[in-house]
Amino acid sequence: MKSTSIFLLFALSANFLYSQNKAIQSIRADHQPRHHELLKEYVEFLSLPNTMNDPEQLQVNARYVVEMMKNRGISNARLLEADTPGAIPAVYGEVLTPGATKTLIFYAHYDGQPVNPDKWAAGLSPFKPQLATGPLDKGGQLIDFPPPGTQIQSEWRLYARAAADDKAGVFTILNAYDAIRRTRLAPKINLKFFFEGEEEKGSTNLGEILEKHRNLLKADAWIICDGPMHASGKKQITFGVRGDVNLNLTVFGAKRPLHSGNYGNWAPNPAMKLVRLLATMKDDEGKVLIPGFYDDVIPLSASERAALAAIPDPAPMMQQELAFAQAENPALSFLESIITLPTLNINGIVSANVGKMASNIIPTTATVTLDLRLVKGNDHQRQVQKVADHIQKQGYHVLDREPTDEERLTHPNIATLRTATGYNAQRTSMDLPISKLVIQAVRSTSDQEIVLMPSAGGSLPLYLFEEVLNTPPISVPVVNYDNNQHGENENVQLGFLWNGIETLAAIMLIDFR
Amino acid sequence: MKSTSIFLLFALSANFLYSQNKAIQSIRADHQPRHHELLKEYVEFLSLPNTMNDPEQLQVNARYVVEMMKNRGISNARLLEADTPGAIPAVYGEVLTPGATKTLIFYAHYDGQPVNPDKWAAGLSPFKPQLATGPLDKGGQLIDFPPPGTQIQSEWRLYARAAADDKAGVFTILNAYDAIRRTRLAPKINLKFFFEGEEEKGSTNLGEILEKHRNLLKADAWIICDGPMHASGKKQITFGVRGDVNLNLTVFGAKRPLHSGNYGNWAPNPAMKLVRLLATMKDDEGKVLIPGFYDDVIPLSASERAALAAIPDPAPMMQQELAFAQAENPALSFLESIITLPTLNINGIVSANVGKMASNIIPTTATVTLDLRLVKGNDHQRQVQKVADHIQKQGYHVLDREPTDEERLTHPNIATLRTATGYNAQRTSMDLPISKLVIQAVRSTSDQEIVLMPSAGGSLPLYLFEEVLNTPPISVPVVNYDNNQHGENENVQLGFLWNGIETLAAIMLIDFR
Repeated sequence: MKSTSIFLLFALSANFLYSQNKAIQSIRADHQPRHHELLKEYVEFLSLPNTMNDPEQLQVNARYVVEMMKNRGISNARLLEADTPGAIPAVYGEVLTPGATKTLIFYAHYDGQPVNPDKWAAGLSPFKPQLATGPLDKGGQLIDFPPPGTQIQSEWRLYARAAADDKAGVFTILNAYDAIRRTRLAPKINLKFFFEGEEEKGSTNLGEILEKHRNLLKADAWIICDGPMHASGKKQITFGVRGDVNLNLTVFGAKRPLHSGNYGNWAPNPAMKLVRLLATMKDDEGKVLIPGFYDDVIPLSASERAALAAIPDPAPMMQQELAFAQAENPALSFLESIITLPTLNINGIVSANVGKMASNIIPTTATVTLDLRLVKGNDHQRQVQKVADHIQKQGYHVLDREPTDEERLTHPNIATLRTATGYNAQRTSMDLPISKLVIQAVRSTSDQEIVLMPSAGGSLPLYLFEEVLNTPPISVPVVNYDNNQHGENENVQLGFLWNGIETLAAIMLIDFR
Repeated sequence: MKSTSIFLLFALSANFLYSQNKAIQSIRADHQPRHHELLKEYVEFLSLPNTMNDPEQLQVNARYVVEMMKNRGISNARLLEADTPGAIPAVYGEVLTPGATKTLIFYAHYDGQPVNPDKWAAGLSPFKPQLATGPLDKGGQLIDFPPPGTQIQSEWRLYARAAADDKAGVFTILNAYDAIRRTRLAPKINLKFFFEGEEEKGSTNLGEILEKHRNLLKADAWIICDGPMHASGKKQITFGVRGDVNLNLTVFGAKRPLHSGNYGNWAPNPAMKLVRLLATMKDDEGKVLIPGFYDDVIPLSASERAALAAIPDPAPMMQQELAFAQAENPALSFLESIITLPTLNINGIVSANVGKMASNIIPTTATVTLDLRLVKGNDHQRQVQKVADHIQKQGYHVLDREPTDEERLTHPNIATLRTATGYNAQRTSMDLPISKLVIQAVRSTSDQEIVLMPSAGGSLPLYLFEEVLNTPPISVPVVNYDNNQHGENENVQLGFLWNGIETLAAIMLIDFR
């Protein structure tokens, strides 16, 4: 009840906070005349190719980010290396405030997804940023960069790889601090900056870098600036992510494909075995039937439930666009579905071929890739074990490798279960003092209500900040949701960059002792 | 009981018949000194490329077969055209016996499967026939064609496309007649010859050709010379085939692939829908659970059951080679499984990707290709309807095309079911007088017991001979079972060609009024 009333208080006071925020008015007055200059630097930054699999490109970007920090008077700007050979360094910098007892550390990443230039729209090139009057798929037109002195429109889009994901994070964080410095506003806390270079690869060495530099990275919270804002355009804070682990499950028939006439009804069909096995795992309402599957789930807190209830249900609109008649479990709302429960999702299933490529055979194997999203309380290894135990209870001999001929001849049902590296969910309490202060800060920069998400449906290895450093992460995305991140025609709407600078500056100015 | 005793009589008299068969001794005495000459002609015939999709190649082969008949004094040798444009002609010829009231017509096909020369073993080329001392995968060595006067070994293999499937049929049929002619043995019946050019394509226009030339093709039985003999090397007669029909079944989720984190537990997963649907179709013992699935099956006759019982069960040996521990339905023997019951077999199932190609998505569709083999009594359209009715009973809206957006938004479960052209099983009674005479004739050419199969497990459109011409077909294969038909390194063991000539000559000499 208490949390709910705090939430309502926040909701009622949004406009009040906004109109009273003199600091943000200064920040705005500082960045507005400088949009040409800011855009020029961002275009230069985006012109540096940063594809995740090219270490040389990433080194160039890392050094560029160090220079950006030095240019803004950020101290101790340097690369943070891992010991693992081939690991891409993170970039670090700090602004220590004399007498401050609290520290926030701001995270973004400077690496980007691979590009296929052929798939980008005519006139676009991933590393030659281009302006357009709006989204190209909704009538936007490519335009030249405007001459100094002319107006730069907030609804314009800048097209380039990483324009949104996630050089926008690096750019808005550093310019938020720069605006604070230029306007001589005085942070009450220490500010640290950490820019990762391996996020798109799955943050392979992030844990090691955090561990190795744990003293340098000491902070009271991580502010994660990555990913898109709410589809409504409202500012958003996200307090967690689901965990994730993938399984590959293969079942076996005869060692070679068999003629379905000469052997049909006699030789075992692995595709039929697999569908019968998978069918035991879920009921018609999407409930997972594997014993104990939901046992570890930590329910949402009162604040989290209240936050969820305050977000309008997007399901009816989305169902219309996606064209299906009924959600998997019609008894749950969209947000309950994606935030409160672990999943057992079939990513794909393949046995031989279908349609014109099909032959009249009995296949040799059937494979399914399962994706288990995890919520707070689930442990990824325990969750996988529940699946393995269930498969065994269905009469399967479970292996983690191909069966030998002797095993094939001994066990009527053999399943090979291989687990990819997984990680747990992470959820920062919305009731922490720092959570409340971040909510208040972001709210002070917007004339609209903001969206508070107890967790995203998606997954990032944010558990590392808690597990390695014992520090809670809070995500404050700044870019438009329709940014085509990871795909072709990635873009950012310019107004989101300017708003992002204000959002992050407000967080840097939190008074927290 | 009566049929069983006839069967036993046959079994006991095998050696007796063989030793008494003076005609076959003459045939053998005729062909044995001519193996060089026969081989030379066969190599020339096999050097003509005959891939199923090349009409010009097939026309060359058809004309070559006409010439082979003319050279053997076969009358009325000609092409039988269909009216359908692009159809490949069959080749016809006849030997009418004055006063004969009965007619046998001998079938083989001269077209072959496509070839991929790169996949053939070193030294082999699909249309440059090569001799080897034995199977190349079991130590056989390629050898030059031997000079005249030297011995040609029966265990040698001739490697070429169609060496077994099915120029061997054309070659042995025509040389069986030639041996009869050369030895001045007098057939008591009319002999007709029919060589198809579209078998590998699925006999697309066979029905039309039979219909158009029905008077010319009048006969008391068709002797089908195609496919391999029993794995034991014993001579074999097969009295039927299973029918076949394929279904493609697709179920639907959202219109675009969805991020499994951002939508998982909410958006319906078509792969999970499909596995749950398929799991309702079959139990753990391989029994099809679709209502009425087995209702139309005409059980085997007493003779057919007796024939089946006389064939040693190949299951234990095959299971060892194929490396699986348990047949789909362990209560049935191998032959019962493949001959007595219709099947519901998954040829393949595909939804999105698995393993390294998998993404963390909820797929848009899931598709299965089902192969329904049919036995005598099943009707292919009725069998498909049972499947469609069952799917509907599971709560699906069943379509034969893609759903519209409106349908997607109306029906929680949509299945698109598309049926490929199918056909029924065919089974000629082993109790017909002609069946008994063919059994007796083949038995008279072998010092071993012969294998009588009431039906093959596989499918061919043999129902056409019954349905269009009201004439029973009986299959008498002549080639070795390990001939790699349809694949690379197709071959025939030479001794099977010589034995085939004797088998077919014995049938041509049946005394049947």
